[in-house]
Amino acid sequence: MTVSSAGQAGQPHLDLKTPPPLPAGGLRVIALGGLGEIGRNMAVLEFDGRLLVIDCGVLFPEAEQPGVDLILPDFGVIEHRLADIEAVVLTHGHEDHIGAIPYLLRLRGDIPLVGSRFTLALVAAKLREHRLVPTLVEVAAGDDHLAGPFHCEFISVNHSIPDALAVAVHTPAGVLVHTGDFKMDQLPLDGVLTDLGAFARLGIEGIDLLLADSTNAEIPGFVTPERSIGPVLEDVFRRATQRLIVSSFASHVHRIQQVLDAADTHGRKVALVGRSMVRNMGVARDLGLLHVPPGLMVSLDEATSMPPEQVVLVSTGSQGEPLSALGRMARGEHHQVTIEAGDTIVLASSLVPGNETAVYKVINGLARLGATVVHKETARVHVSGHAPAGELRTLLNVAKPRYLMPVHGEWRHLRAHAALAEETGMARDRVLLAEDGVVVDLVDGKASITGSVPVGNVYVDGLNVGDVGEESLQERRILGDEGFVALTVVIEPSTGTIVRPVHLSTRGFSDDPTAFDEVLRLVEDNLKRELSDGQTDAHRLSQSIRRTVGKWVSDTHRRRPMIIPTVLEV
Amino acid sequence: MTVSSAGQAGQPHLDLKTPPPLPAGGLRVIALGGLGEIGRNMAVLEFDGRLLVIDCGVLFPEAEQPGVDLILPDFGVIEHRLADIEAVVLTHGHEDHIGAIPYLLRLRGDIPLVGSRFTLALVAAKLREHRLVPTLVEVAAGDDHLAGPFHCEFISVNHSIPDALAVAVHTPAGVLVHTGDFKMDQLPLDGVLTDLGAFARLGIEGIDLLLADSTNAEIPGFVTPERSIGPVLEDVFRRATQRLIVSSFASHVHRIQQVLDAADTHGRKVALVGRSMVRNMGVARDLGLLHVPPGLMVSLDEATSMPPEQVVLVSTGSQGEPLSALGRMARGEHHQVTIEAGDTIVLASSLVPGNETAVYKVINGLARLGATVVHKETARVHVSGHAPAGELRTLLNVAKPRYLMPVHGEWRHLRAHAALAEETGMARDRVLLAEDGVVVDLVDGKASITGSVPVGNVYVDGLNVGDVGEESLQERRILGDEGFVALTVVIEPSTGTIVRPVHLSTRGFSDDPTAFDEVLRLVEDNLKRELSDGQTDAHRLSQSIRRTVGKWVSDTHRRRPMIIPTVLEV
Repeated sequence: MTVSSAGQAGQPHLDLKTPPPLPAGGLRVIALGGLGEIGRNMAVLEFDGRLLVIDCGVLFPEAEQPGVDLILPDFGVIEHRLADIEAVVLTHGHEDHIGAIPYLLRLRGDIPLVGSRFTLALVAAKLREHRLVPTLVEVAAGDDHLAGPFHCEFISVNHSIPDALAVAVHTPAGVLVHTGDFKMDQLPLDGVLTDLGAFARLGIEGIDLLLADSTNAEIPGFVTPERSIGPVLEDVFRRATQRLIVSSFASHVHRIQQVLDAADTHGRKVALVGRSMVRNMGVARDLGLLHVPPGLMVSLDEATSMPPEQVVLVSTGSQGEPLSALGRMARGEHHQVTIEAGDTIVLASSLVPGNETAVYKVINGLARLGATVVHKETARVHVSGHAPAGELRTLLNVAKPRYLMPVHGEWRHLRAHAALAEETGMARDRVLLAEDGVVVDLVDGKASITGSVPVGNVYVDGLNVGDVGEESLQERRILGDEGFVALTVVIEPSTGTIVRPVHLSTRGFSDDPTAFDEVLRLVEDNLKRELSDGQTDAHRLSQSIRRTVGKWVSDTHRRRPMIIPTVLEV
Repeated sequence: MTVSSAGQAGQPHLDLKTPPPLPAGGLRVIALGGLGEIGRNMAVLEFDGRLLVIDCGVLFPEAEQPGVDLILPDFGVIEHRLADIEAVVLTHGHEDHIGAIPYLLRLRGDIPLVGSRFTLALVAAKLREHRLVPTLVEVAAGDDHLAGPFHCEFISVNHSIPDALAVAVHTPAGVLVHTGDFKMDQLPLDGVLTDLGAFARLGIEGIDLLLADSTNAEIPGFVTPERSIGPVLEDVFRRATQRLIVSSFASHVHRIQQVLDAADTHGRKVALVGRSMVRNMGVARDLGLLHVPPGLMVSLDEATSMPPEQVVLVSTGSQGEPLSALGRMARGEHHQVTIEAGDTIVLASSLVPGNETAVYKVINGLARLGATVVHKETARVHVSGHAPAGELRTLLNVAKPRYLMPVHGEWRHLRAHAALAEETGMARDRVLLAEDGVVVDLVDGKASITGSVPVGNVYVDGLNVGDVGEESLQERRILGDEGFVALTVVIEPSTGTIVRPVHLSTRGFSDDPTAFDEVLRLVEDNLKRELSDGQTDAHRLSQSIRRTVGKWVSDTHRRRPMIIPTVLEV
């Protein structure tokens, strides 16, 4: 369990206690994820004993969480109160906002999921794979929805996925507004703007607490419109004389739309590559969000039988995923597509922090095969989906919240967001800097941090949820860096004799199979001496082996493999 | 061993063979490192049976090389020809150019090391730590040095470390010029410019083969002068009201100079933190490269007893190294320095690819504690040391080489450099795109790729050099991602009985100690059946255990831990 730390802006409270009971008429907010990290966004609102959840996403593991597939928010705070949950409101369909829904529904399957049409379509597709049948409540911008004491009002926002919503939650304790993820593209491809008018109206009515996206708070200025990418793609298409592959996020409908448009203009057919790309674009097309000119699409099989200059492949793998189609192509291991010198590959995507090495590996692999790789550092083929500083200031000035709680960000983002709020004139004690588990109560119009609840990382590994914990991860880190040496000896305690000499098993330590020969003799000599001295306790003998080997390996190799001594008694 | 791939620009040759013997009068170039990677730069030149080495650096491992400390160039090609080496020319003092020198000198201690004063001072300090006494040959820009048949001429270049040199190697086969690392800062802090006049003169005389730094070939334009950072630091110093910490590379004398100047202006004393920072700045000061105003420096002990606003700490740790002083401060674990809300920390450094997660962890840790963190993404506190596209074009136009071999770069950089060369009018077959191990021969004025030699990664882990190989690393990757389960059983083959039931040892698989209870029974039942069927072969029984456990863990957990069955016979 993580000990939480937070505070009003500038004053971190490092030792928050369990909060006092929520006073009657108060609104409580607990972020279970997304604060102090980018991912697993999940906020729990409580009023009068009832709960409303906003988003329920996953976090992708870092190098220090080796072998883990996903990290979930810690449901510990709500798992004994599942019946109190009125609904889960989903702001949009990205994995860091919907990815943990299957795991929450395993605890209680009939929690209503409230979201926009496209968001719910993506959730439903995901839940089908988990064989779960959800209760879906479709809403649109401008709609109201009553979930117990929580009167939700939905507001259109612009993001890197269609059909994103902010939500205003009206309660007797006051009004909370959660932006979800947003930016203020003033020329959006689908014409759907972030509804500043709605934020202004709510601001005039009075927003008590604003939870707002902090991702780009460190970035100055305003977003470049998504549609500015079109001409760049046009230029790439014009120059490309051979095979052309564009990789992007499988949910970025507007980015893919621009690729389809460029393909149509330049007489190339389009094949979608990657399960999630095919699935999501199918959903987007069915819902009228993706406009596909007749006859444009071909299957990958058809595409590979066509001349390379007549087709464009639209692929997943933009984050360097080694098992993706693009990853295989970069290593020359894709069974249908072989990269040739002169091919063009476009990574029309962000470079998610932590993925740099993997992405550059793919770019280098493609470059080695002779391809020209166009990526965000060499051409403007990507714009972010999150509001930078200029837009965050604008939102604050329009919405005029009484209190701001920066969400959706690492500490550097949250603190930068707090600094922007101070710039726009908010008093320092009106900005609540919290991290996962921190409890914010809105009581009598005053919001403050009142404590924290324990939250940890819940790891998904294969079919296991929660079995792999910090202890296993620490073992993995040691094993992964140092390897292990296991020494097993069979003794007969009654006679004090070694029945079977030391058996050695080592992995990850050395390519030299004789690396431990020297210490084996040492271990056996020590064992014989101890046994002849009457020491036959298996645990003590194990400890002695560990000491002998540990000292030897440290002295002779300056290394610290995991040492696993086993003394078996027969 | 890596199978090499390379080619004239645009045509990768994927199956290069061992090159034919070097024709008499020819010059051979083999890059042992630095091509297809950023790091362990090392080129071997051969003429008339004699060898000249240019640079001998280390590569820092990536996540897929877990637990490794350093990666060396593979000396296999030269280790039987050590007596043929006339000298090692060192272009400058960065680790990726000098770091492997101790390991080369262990093979032959008296190889002359030729370099500038500062470069040799850093090498000498490093070799003292390895208890090696080198043969040093100091040269300066404009000097000539004859190393066997290699007539070396040194040229001043500007880089992110003082006293960097390019080298022109005149041989009867022709003239090879190696830029080392360089950029063309036109307002360098120390007035030392990249000597375009010398490159122009050599160009007029005729450069047969140019080896040039490709690091920033993808970046358009020209470098911003190093001295532009001064005013940014001034601004940070002016705003800082509490503790101020500036972190940078321990060899970046000009960056540190500007910090000292800002401290002097603002009446703050300076304490250096970190062993390499103290050592290198001592060397730089002794050589007159770092100008320290009298009375400016204090020890860390003195600094921590002074009011925070009267001091600036200059620290290592800018790459997020967890054990560095800054790393400890970010976690609140430094025994002398406690970060307070309102402190200012400047990371006046690049973000080396691969280090992003570690660096952001430090920034987030500091932000969590309430500090303001200024870094290259929020202010211009760093400029690169490598020539971007505009300067690379300039060099090509000035030096007019007959052939170009892009060096010092990953494939994306090498290929971008090749594209720049084509833009300036070089024919495609005049650009030699090689990677580590590829052999380039200059014969009768014509340079071409003639084959490749096997090169691999030589890993340093603790005191071991080369013991940890790809097999150990593959084991580490599996152990680190999946953990292991070891099952040991003692049997008596003569009677076909189990003497000691299965002992289970598992690490990194699950925090639940009973995770394998179910399969243990299965394993024992199978064993008993096989023994009673007369199967007593330890190897076959082990294989059977592996199959049973592997299938069970895959079916029930969808995971693949390393399975280590051991059947001991008594």
